[in-house]
Amino acid sequence: MFNYEELFQTHKTPFYLYDFDKIKQAFLNYKEAFKGRKSLICYALKANSNLSILSLLAHLESGADCVSIGEIHRALKAGIKPYRIVFSGVGKSAFEIEQALKLNILFLNVESFMELTTIETIAQSLGIKARISIRINPNIDAKTHPYISTGLKENKFGVGEKEALEMFLWAKKSAFLEPVSVHFHIGSQLLDLEPIIEASQKVAKIAKSLIALGIDLRFFDVGGGIGVSYENEETIKLYDYAQGILNALQGLDLTIICEPGRSIVAESGELITQVLYEKKAQNKRFVVVDAGMNDFLRPSLYHAKHAIRVITPSKGREISPCDVVGPVCESSDTFLKDAHLPELEPGDKLVIEKVGAYGSSMASQYNSRPKLLELALEDHKIRVIRKREALEDLWRLEEEGLKGV
Amino acid sequence: MFNYEELFQTHKTPFYLYDFDKIKQAFLNYKEAFKGRKSLICYALKANSNLSILSLLAHLESGADCVSIGEIHRALKAGIKPYRIVFSGVGKSAFEIEQALKLNILFLNVESFMELTTIETIAQSLGIKARISIRINPNIDAKTHPYISTGLKENKFGVGEKEALEMFLWAKKSAFLEPVSVHFHIGSQLLDLEPIIEASQKVAKIAKSLIALGIDLRFFDVGGGIGVSYENEETIKLYDYAQGILNALQGLDLTIICEPGRSIVAESGELITQVLYEKKAQNKRFVVVDAGMNDFLRPSLYHAKHAIRVITPSKGREISPCDVVGPVCESSDTFLKDAHLPELEPGDKLVIEKVGAYGSSMASQYNSRPKLLELALEDHKIRVIRKREALEDLWRLEEEGLKGV
Repeated sequence: MFNYEELFQTHKTPFYLYDFDKIKQAFLNYKEAFKGRKSLICYALKANSNLSILSLLAHLESGADCVSIGEIHRALKAGIKPYRIVFSGVGKSAFEIEQALKLNILFLNVESFMELTTIETIAQSLGIKARISIRINPNIDAKTHPYISTGLKENKFGVGEKEALEMFLWAKKSAFLEPVSVHFHIGSQLLDLEPIIEASQKVAKIAKSLIALGIDLRFFDVGGGIGVSYENEETIKLYDYAQGILNALQGLDLTIICEPGRSIVAESGELITQVLYEKKAQNKRFVVVDAGMNDFLRPSLYHAKHAIRVITPSKGREISPCDVVGPVCESSDTFLKDAHLPELEPGDKLVIEKVGAYGSSMASQYNSRPKLLELALEDHKIRVIRKREALEDLWRLEEEGLKGV
Repeated sequence: MFNYEELFQTHKTPFYLYDFDKIKQAFLNYKEAFKGRKSLICYALKANSNLSILSLLAHLESGADCVSIGEIHRALKAGIKPYRIVFSGVGKSAFEIEQALKLNILFLNVESFMELTTIETIAQSLGIKARISIRINPNIDAKTHPYISTGLKENKFGVGEKEALEMFLWAKKSAFLEPVSVHFHIGSQLLDLEPIIEASQKVAKIAKSLIALGIDLRFFDVGGGIGVSYENEETIKLYDYAQGILNALQGLDLTIICEPGRSIVAESGELITQVLYEKKAQNKRFVVVDAGMNDFLRPSLYHAKHAIRVITPSKGREISPCDVVGPVCESSDTFLKDAHLPELEPGDKLVIEKVGAYGSSMASQYNSRPKLLELALEDHKIRVIRKREALEDLWRLEEEGLKGV
């Protein structure tokens, strides 16, 4: 059992704590699942792009799935090789495309015909041949939260089969484009294997047609990984996931690219917070903690449920239902309704669980609250992987604008 | 008509632009509404705490409604007087309380009995008498979005009437507490006058009892201001709002404190963005712009609708329905569904309207996207009031943690 008390002698709440062994193991599980097959695991930075986490993954030969030039620079800075970086996203700016091409990353996942022509123009101006992949929207219901479902035709992502074919043929004819991959991604937090198999089969069939048309495909990019068990949901087994994809790819000699994010980091992360007040308002019990929705947005934005446990010894205290809420001035600043927790006192410490993915990466300074300290547990040692923001960091970029200053 | 073209010669999209004359006028309208009555308008920083906006309001003798020590420091830095600052919020830490007391602000709005005892302990240790107000939860339905409704007994805010009375009497007996005000705040974005009148009457009655019990009240804090017309909703007239409150206060010689935030800044702000791509995905039209949900969260978080207009000349272009979406890799990164916009080309400029409140203050760096440039239009001149973040700002606090660096 990890000794939190020691931690509190050095660090004040609230903070994020990541278990690096868990991250390592989660990544190696993906490698193992695709063993014996040419594959590249491209960690999806959007889940958590802390440089030290990226560095850990870089040492395991991870690639990177990036969605902005900021993420590409983060990946490179942490030691991920350019030839293992893919660049996805519906809204790449001309500046971002130019930078990515100059950095010679593996390929760009293209999301529209207009983007394809933009990339060609930029590649031409640079006098290079841009490696591209085209994101096919397979119109398959991933059965996940509508906010993170991305594979239906009403979503903004990818292009339909017919348009993809036109784009591939158009790219093949260009002297400045080199189509090397097909890509799809039907959504995040997948708990159902069937949609991913169905999509793989659909896109494998397209890949075969493309090869028959003389397009020299080398990669098959299956998008994000499997879902995480936040509320004791049954999750997909990695072995089944990999086997399903491998079966769909029979007869295709392509390197599989997989872009897990959430399933690599979610379970490694804890948000440690302390009780400020217990409050009984008109027969309802509230536990007010020092972390807020600005620090961890998932409960507000996605109605996500994250278990909360007490780490202060609380044996013998009466357990009763309560809402665990933050200090931010909105009713949406509620971490968990109807939690069952022992009676608590100011200073008691709580853990919000499985917050490694889409936690710190979505944090804001709302209510002028500085962003949190982040710690890593590695080789039984604790180290700081992101310093806590100072109050001055909140207004640093506003001072010059202040008249008279 | 404002000349945007000139702006684009100097500044790249996306950026926020605020009309300072509108902010000034909105603030003066509140002053006017309460004219002839002792009153203090405490601007609610959570809506937008940019130092230059605060400085503008400080020159108009605005007070400040703050919800964190970060906001208090912002207010002071911008020239708002300590004796015009109130400190609200359910989760004030001991550190924040101590700082606020040392800075000698007007008073603390107390939200629970436990907080009251904490304040007393700290005041005692400082050897001072802490001015406090108690937030009463009037259990009135403000008929606004459940996320920003705060006056129902199931919300975390304030205390019931009975508990408030006990707290006032307890505070009165303390040598380190000085109860000077009653406070309530039933929610943000109020479009219905009735709940606010009802709450005022309810709390005025309580105030009279308190005075009868010998408590020397001096302020009557009615919380946030009126709602904003985002989608042509009919809004409350400020005159009616003020008169309603003044009527409820008949026979009470108290200074009215009002804490408007949204209604001061919302309509002043524009988010200027440009088209990256037009995309027709399987018969659905998407306009992909260079601003994202990380820059402006209200559509994702509250399903808020903000009108979008095209500022590039587009006469004669065919108008059709489309979804305006950002570059962030989530389906929730959608600014407006079923907008009716002319055919657009990369580089065309759009304005997302009325984003002055809860826009930049809720922004994050999600997807490793630097926070935006902010500009002010004042006296027909444009000036930078917040510089755009550099890519380096994204990982500045992580570099030391990166092994080997």
